[in-house]
Amino acid sequence: MSVLEGPRRERRRVFRGGRLVEGLLDGDRLVFDGGESIAEADAVYAAPVAPRTIACVHLNYRSRAVEFGVDLERSHPTYFLKPATAINAHRGELARPADCQLMNYEGEIAAVVGRPMQRVRPDDVWDHLAGFCCANDVGIHDFRDTDAGSMLRVKGQDGFCPIGPGLVSGIDIRRSTLRTYVNATLVQEGKVAEMIWGIDELLADLTRHVTLHPGDLVLTGTPWHSRPIFPGDVVEVEVEGIGRLTNRVVDRPAPDNRRGFPATVTKVSLGVALGSDYHLLKKPDNPPTPAQYREARTELIARNMASGPPRREPR
Amino acid sequence: MSVLEGPRRERRRVFRGGRLVEGLLDGDRLVFDGGESIAEADAVYAAPVAPRTIACVHLNYRSRAVEFGVDLERSHPTYFLKPATAINAHRGELARPADCQLMNYEGEIAAVVGRPMQRVRPDDVWDHLAGFCCANDVGIHDFRDTDAGSMLRVKGQDGFCPIGPGLVSGIDIRRSTLRTYVNATLVQEGKVAEMIWGIDELLADLTRHVTLHPGDLVLTGTPWHSRPIFPGDVVEVEVEGIGRLTNRVVDRPAPDNRRGFPATVTKVSLGVALGSDYHLLKKPDNPPTPAQYREARTELIARNMASGPPRREPR
Amino acid sequence: MSVLEGPRRERRRVFRGGRLVEGLLDGDRLVFDGGESIAEADAVYAAPVAPRTIACVHLNYRSRAVEFGVDLERSHPTYFLKPATAINAHRGELARPADCQLMNYEGEIAAVVGRPMQRVRPDDVWDHLAGFCCANDVGIHDFRDTDAGSMLRVKGQDGFCPIGPGLVSGIDIRRSTLRTYVNATLVQEGKVAEMIWGIDELLADLTRHVTLHPGDLVLTGTPWHSRPIFPGDVVEVEVEGIGRLTNRVVDRPAPDNRRGFPATVTKVSLGVALGSDYHLLKKPDNPPTPAQYREARTELIARNMASGPPRREPR
Amino acid sequence: MSVLEGPRRERRRVFRGGRLVEGLLDGDRLVFDGGESIAEADAVYAAPVAPRTIACVHLNYRSRAVEFGVDLERSHPTYFLKPATAINAHRGELARPADCQLMNYEGEIAAVVGRPMQRVRPDDVWDHLAGFCCANDVGIHDFRDTDAGSMLRVKGQDGFCPIGPGLVSGIDIRRSTLRTYVNATLVQEGKVAEMIWGIDELLADLTRHVTLHPGDLVLTGTPWHSRPIFPGDVVEVEVEGIGRLTNRVVDRPAPDNRRGFPATVTKVSLGVALGSDYHLLKKPDNPPTPAQYREARTELIARNMASGPPRREPR
Repeated sequence: MSVLEGPRRERRRVFRGGRLVEGLLDGDRLVFDGGESIAEADAVYAAPVAPRTIACVHLNYRSRAVEFGVDLERSHPTYFLKPATAINAHRGELARPADCQLMNYEGEIAAVVGRPMQRVRPDDVWDHLAGFCCANDVGIHDFRDTDAGSMLRVKGQDGFCPIGPGLVSGIDIRRSTLRTYVNATLVQEGKVAEMIWGIDELLADLTRHVTLHPGDLVLTGTPWHSRPIFPGDVVEVEVEGIGRLTNRVVDRPAPDNRRGFPATVTKVSLGVALGSDYHLLKKPDNPPTPAQYREARTELIARNMASGPPRREPR
Repeated sequence: MSVLEGPRRERRRVFRGGRLVEGLLDGDRLVFDGGESIAEADAVYAAPVAPRTIACVHLNYRSRAVEFGVDLERSHPTYFLKPATAINAHRGELARPADCQLMNYEGEIAAVVGRPMQRVRPDDVWDHLAGFCCANDVGIHDFRDTDAGSMLRVKGQDGFCPIGPGLVSGIDIRRSTLRTYVNATLVQEGKVAEMIWGIDELLADLTRHVTLHPGDLVLTGTPWHSRPIFPGDVVEVEVEGIGRLTNRVVDRPAPDNRRGFPATVTKVSLGVALGSDYHLLKKPDNPPTPAQYREARTELIARNMASGPPRREPR
Repeated sequence: MSVLEGPRRERRRVFRGGRLVEGLLDGDRLVFDGGESIAEADAVYAAPVAPRTIACVHLNYRSRAVEFGVDLERSHPTYFLKPATAINAHRGELARPADCQLMNYEGEIAAVVGRPMQRVRPDDVWDHLAGFCCANDVGIHDFRDTDAGSMLRVKGQDGFCPIGPGLVSGIDIRRSTLRTYVNATLVQEGKVAEMIWGIDELLADLTRHVTLHPGDLVLTGTPWHSRPIFPGDVVEVEVEGIGRLTNRVVDRPAPDNRRGFPATVTKVSLGVALGSDYHLLKKPDNPPTPAQYREARTELIARNMASGPPRREPR
Repeated sequence: MSVLEGPRRERRRVFRGGRLVEGLLDGDRLVFDGGESIAEADAVYAAPVAPRTIACVHLNYRSRAVEFGVDLERSHPTYFLKPATAINAHRGELARPADCQLMNYEGEIAAVVGRPMQRVRPDDVWDHLAGFCCANDVGIHDFRDTDAGSMLRVKGQDGFCPIGPGLVSGIDIRRSTLRTYVNATLVQEGKVAEMIWGIDELLADLTRHVTLHPGDLVLTGTPWHSRPIFPGDVVEVEVEGIGRLTNRVVDRPAPDNRRGFPATVTKVSLGVALGSDYHLLKKPDNPPTPAQYREARTELIARNMASGPPRREPR
């Protein structure tokens, strides 16, 4: 039975009265499996699933490839993993350690596995999925220089994979559009149709190598205009037909067991974190600072969302 | 209580009579917790732990840094993840898909977490570990070109993380030497003292970013002379005081759902897979082939194990 | 989608080459999800699911109620739990401690939960199940006197819940017949239609009180003629459309940490273990012994399977 | 290392910012493993462990044996299981379905397993435990008539096993006293020394039959004076050296999928729920009602806590 076909069902998991309980969203109420209900607004959410494997595609939306001047058409998808400890929930907090400055949002769609998948053909993928969630592939680019590719320091930190609010099946995700908002302002917009590799192709590709189990996640890429967020910001990822995932950035003390690569703001990390804004903010002899971006961002966002990504020469 | 202090205990897990059971190694017998025992030689092993997070350091032994001409002294450790589905056991099979040629062994020591670890100081690491296993960080470098850094295609495949035979505590691992054997011939040798970053430093570093839970693994790097292995080969990783992990390479059909990056032998993948042998085997206009390596390897191994890694110019 | 509707699918889990892998039964081959296959005869089985909750109904088949003179018609089902450690697999061993004599088989059908179930109506039960397995609710009645009702000592021992060989969906279980064989001789036969409370009613009843999760099991009762088995015996539970679960009884040393209730053969435990044979074997002043039963059982089984349960006065 | 020896450590688990996090109690603050802290009063608790097996002894305190006229001295402990779904947390809710009237508290001490246990000798038990929690073996005696022994309907309901607030090691539990409070009034008091079978004996006995794994729980019995509680009541279980577990009784709708045994108030269920108060409240021709108990309970509690259990003839 294909996950793309209706009726739509949205399953949520909440922490209630000392226990995790599950239920279905019905209008503005959460109806638990036993029949009781609460106002959705009062829910304390847990992530709707508890994956062991979380695989993420590096680049998949055309607009982001354009922003970074990458020609993906003749290429293949590449992936990295997040640890299970990265999972976070709707209304959860995104903790930015005090020694870091470049925490970025990346609005994404997460595909959730429903049945064991090993070497599954693209046509059979939709029968193996349990549904979809909104996701935020949060990263701290202060560690970008040490981590390219594996992303463990950048994107593997505790709580850097919020998903939710619920798990939705019975929606043709191929027709959806993803939007990200920071403090209620639209900052990302991308259609699933813009993906270079469809969700079915990503899952087929991954399961050539790795068996995926029920509850495992595949994050399917982010459109252009991932940018830094700061303590106090509220970031929301909305996917048509799926829902709207809300998280708030909070301060966290820096670690006191300092070892390994220190959080560092460099041209490379700024280049990734600021994307095409890097060149706009750059002074003749100096790269921009995170503070400069923060100050200018209202204006930059307005400009960018009106214009779309500036076309860079493909690398 | 430090994992480095005795008495030595070795805990193994076997599949017996329809169930997983655990026990202690006592000479050539496995004594199950209930008091029964079997000859160790008859055991069908499961991995001694079932981790959710498996973090691996990219480069840590000086000899491997020398072989690849990498100057690590002024650098920091970097990591990648393997999915939980990569776990394999003593006497388990390493499946090489028929479209691949460059499966390499990498003998390693795995540190096993015993208590939750978050921002742990190096001095406190030994109190948080449950013990150590032998491990093999198996990779297929036919996917090297697409995967640098994250290693998901190269090293994340099902069964590419054999660990065992058991979980050992009460050994001062800092004084141990690791050795790898292919078909009973020594092919790798490295002292823990040769590591650039000690096991305590790796765990302290990682837990700045990621909380580790009981059973989670950290693979701590491989010495020089990782080389290809072929169906029929028996590969063994031995760590003094820990044990000897045995695995056999077997053929597996190629996937029939081909999507994404195809297995490909290139100069880059050969360069990583063959290490310093690449230059020895290279013809004026042509890179070596996996078959040429296989034919020459008895001689090359003898030469290499006698000479140690040729010193390359640091990159 | 109801678990009762076809096509039939049989999913099995085996321990292979160091890892647990899953696949579908296809004739006399097991075809793993990645496409490889092995002869079914060579498989080393694990249980097809790993439940947390295993609930068992005490009495449900009319023939067993008749055998024990219990009038269930005006009553309600009652249940006990087995711990998750009781799970065992096809071809697994049933270990009888050396201080015990009255290990009995009880052939049963296990219903396997597919989706979270809380206060589910009988009509909705079939949509929430993943499938069915053969099961054996093994018990050691030497502990009967201490354990009536909760059954922890009698039926909760390690490995006393073999299930399998696989998990089957797409079969109308309501039309199936269950049969148990000891050393290839038929010893139990009962139609699902003979159940006093249907599988849908049991699940509805249980989920009034307890939330069941995917993989959880409900064992649905055994027909008349549960009897002792002895080391060396092979016991098989066959359910039409589901398969045939095979287990062998083996000796196990008695525990040496004796505490609590000792294994004891009494009139009560013999009465339960031998059922209607108790009265046949009883001498004027003495209850029968397990050895007497063993000696007479070929004859008793033939007689019983021909006659069916003698009608006792309902209690 | 014995769990009885100091220093005392108290580990708690809370739901915070979308995720489960762990830390140590330090005065009135919870200090998370990463170093951050919150006021304990603000914590939203999860249970400190997630067991698969929860075994409970039926009767163990002398005062409760006296209250029910049971002679345990020449007997052996008996047990029942609760499903894993019964786990609840400090400050969690105890949900009483609207068709039920006889929800009782039973203050208990839970022993938490730290290492796999199979046939462990009493002397070795303390080395295998991770610590202790306060626990409440909540039951609804409206199902007593159908469930004696297994207790699944009475005590297996969702959330009927609150434990916490934390997991404590480094305390000699054998010298502790347990106290239960309803709405701040003392209602139970019993010394561990009053147990008929020590915690070490219970664990030795159970592990003759069942392997226990890290995180599994054994509930060790309740003293006399378990009594009904009603929606709105706050019940607290305090164990010296361990902490104080608080839960509130709330209303829950009756199930609408009624099947199986209906909640029923009978002489038997009242006899268990009201204990020695049954006879005090009984009218010549009529058993007491739950409402009569509720009305009289302030007086009854005062009387009972002053007098202790009336001595009944042993059965």
